[in-house]
Amino acid sequence: MIKNYLLTPGPTQVPPEVLREISRPLIHHRTPQYAALLANVKEEIKYVFQTRNPVLIFASTGTGAMEGAVSNTLSRGNKVIVVIGGKFGERWAQICKVYGIDVIPINVEFGDVVDPSEIASALKKTPNVKAVFCTLTETSTGVVTDIEAIGKIVKDTKTLLIVDSISGLGGQEIKTDDWRVDVNVAGSQKGLMLPPGLAFVSISDKAWKVIDQSTSPKYYFDFKKAKHSLDKNQDAYTGSVSLIFGLKESLRLIRSDGLDRVFARHRAMAEATRCGVRALGLELFSKRPSDIVTAVKVPANVDGQELMKKMRDEYGVGIAGGQEPFKGKIFRISHLGWVERFDVITALSCLELALDEMGFTIEFGKAVGAAEGVFKAQRSAFK
Amino acid sequence: MIKNYLLTPGPTQVPPEVLREISRPLIHHRTPQYAALLANVKEEIKYVFQTRNPVLIFASTGTGAMEGAVSNTLSRGNKVIVVIGGKFGERWAQICKVYGIDVIPINVEFGDVVDPSEIASALKKTPNVKAVFCTLTETSTGVVTDIEAIGKIVKDTKTLLIVDSISGLGGQEIKTDDWRVDVNVAGSQKGLMLPPGLAFVSISDKAWKVIDQSTSPKYYFDFKKAKHSLDKNQDAYTGSVSLIFGLKESLRLIRSDGLDRVFARHRAMAEATRCGVRALGLELFSKRPSDIVTAVKVPANVDGQELMKKMRDEYGVGIAGGQEPFKGKIFRISHLGWVERFDVITALSCLELALDEMGFTIEFGKAVGAAEGVFKAQRSAFK
Repeated sequence: MIKNYLLTPGPTQVPPEVLREISRPLIHHRTPQYAALLANVKEEIKYVFQTRNPVLIFASTGTGAMEGAVSNTLSRGNKVIVVIGGKFGERWAQICKVYGIDVIPINVEFGDVVDPSEIASALKKTPNVKAVFCTLTETSTGVVTDIEAIGKIVKDTKTLLIVDSISGLGGQEIKTDDWRVDVNVAGSQKGLMLPPGLAFVSISDKAWKVIDQSTSPKYYFDFKKAKHSLDKNQDAYTGSVSLIFGLKESLRLIRSDGLDRVFARHRAMAEATRCGVRALGLELFSKRPSDIVTAVKVPANVDGQELMKKMRDEYGVGIAGGQEPFKGKIFRISHLGWVERFDVITALSCLELALDEMGFTIEFGKAVGAAEGVFKAQRSAFK
Repeated sequence: MIKNYLLTPGPTQVPPEVLREISRPLIHHRTPQYAALLANVKEEIKYVFQTRNPVLIFASTGTGAMEGAVSNTLSRGNKVIVVIGGKFGERWAQICKVYGIDVIPINVEFGDVVDPSEIASALKKTPNVKAVFCTLTETSTGVVTDIEAIGKIVKDTKTLLIVDSISGLGGQEIKTDDWRVDVNVAGSQKGLMLPPGLAFVSISDKAWKVIDQSTSPKYYFDFKKAKHSLDKNQDAYTGSVSLIFGLKESLRLIRSDGLDRVFARHRAMAEATRCGVRALGLELFSKRPSDIVTAVKVPANVDGQELMKKMRDEYGVGIAGGQEPFKGKIFRISHLGWVERFDVITALSCLELALDEMGFTIEFGKAVGAAEGVFKAQRSAFK
């Protein structure tokens, strides 16, 4: 009878209020009832995106909407810049290649972020770049990219700024309109506190004009068709009824909390986690750490995969290991979505117990104490 | 958007598996389906009681079954011994008085437990004592009574041993048959990990014989009528269908875990909690502390009611304050039922933060570190 704590960067924990909505009896998706539901969520989701533009909703994971962002805006032979600083930057490049797009990579050391001036230089050097692809929070390395700075560079060009905010939205600030993000992709199982299964894309006026010219093949993720349906409060295909019930509730929770408080809480939890792991003598992996996940180097003589498995299987605390090429070399503690101070405390306490068990010298209570110091200083973030 | 942690000694947390069963569509209580359900739980509940005798199930709180234990076994003018070491010992005496029973109290300093030899002396001094009333875990003071020793004293007399195990059953060991407990009362919202609303009573052969002679008035809590219905896999009145669905699942969870593991876990969590609060320089209130709740003296210059409210309302951690006459003077952290190591860690971490906020000198991480030391030593209790 082990108790499970899900502290991975997606799926994240789902609040009981949302679980309850998801378990409502089904309604049909071609009814006025469902249309009213969709009319509500299509407006409310804009609040989290900080946009006035339409936000499309797909029954898919974030990757599906990433593919749509490529196939709807680009055509074979187009040139794009892709910032590659981790697994999810690589995914943008992979999708572009599948569609015959000419990728100019900006490779960033994993654990670091792109210097926005590199994007400015690349844009100057290469004419006719159709889009710049970035990742808000590169979950695989725990960093946050300075999208605001990149937006300032891209906004006065003909190039689109296309951002994967999948793991960030609802935890890490992203001002879609103010920062001039043209296509912004998100997923349900992260800061939106829902199970996996929904993807979201906001699209600027500038992007819609480019979409008109794209000749890449697309059917399921056809943005124009999706927009046409959404305007009538319909889904192009079968609506994800239960998840949309849940979405309405999670958006209500976020709205009633207020984005400023959501972000302040994530910032404080991230700081507490960092202080906690540093107090144990561990080193952060990320040079510009995000507010949604903390990536930590596995200490020498400790097997990182075993650490992660021990915490999950023997203590019930699910954190994430490293993804290739960092499998076993880093571990990642998420503090994203429906989490609070004592989730961070639980993660750090479990880390102390598990590392001690694996022979790493630990002074019990050290990490937790350091985190408590941050929570004391940041008390206002939790009022 | 505060996250709530229920760490009170009842109601306790309910596992998601049980919540799911409780939310099943209703069935009627006079059907073969419900009879099959009742046939299952009436046998399985014996495992938790450690009895071969029938266990009656009532739609009521524990207090209702306590009243039944009095009204079914006694008659006006009978003499009984009641051990009074807290609010729940007092309740036995109050119920007895309502039924015109002559109560010989054994008053115990609150926070202490009865010396079993006092019961032996009282039984010797007074002829014709019909029953001895005790409380397994006196939740109001955090102690556990030595029922085994008392059972050895009462077993060879004509006197019944009647025990309130309401807050203990499923967390604190009670061997109903081996310890010769004649009437044993329990409730759903404690170690059985259910919402409030069900009470349970096990009854020995010795007790059934006494019940035959009782002339006290009773209707709803008539044990013979309840037994007669239960033998036919029925409830005397309307069955608590949803809670019985849940009971089946919680009994399945306890059985699959095994009572030995359940008790070992509770023991370890109690020890960790005690070590944690002592590490902060706080003093335990209980002289023989139970495994299900830890009662702690509120330090001087700290308002105990405010401490409890701060933890609950500002941190989401629900512990219990003191009940009269200890309101504001003690607080109680429960580790009963569906709780695990990180519930204890959460309670102690929150205690550190809240006490610090109230001006009490705290070294952050001290209590948590001490508890982790216990969890390390008692690791086998959580395998």
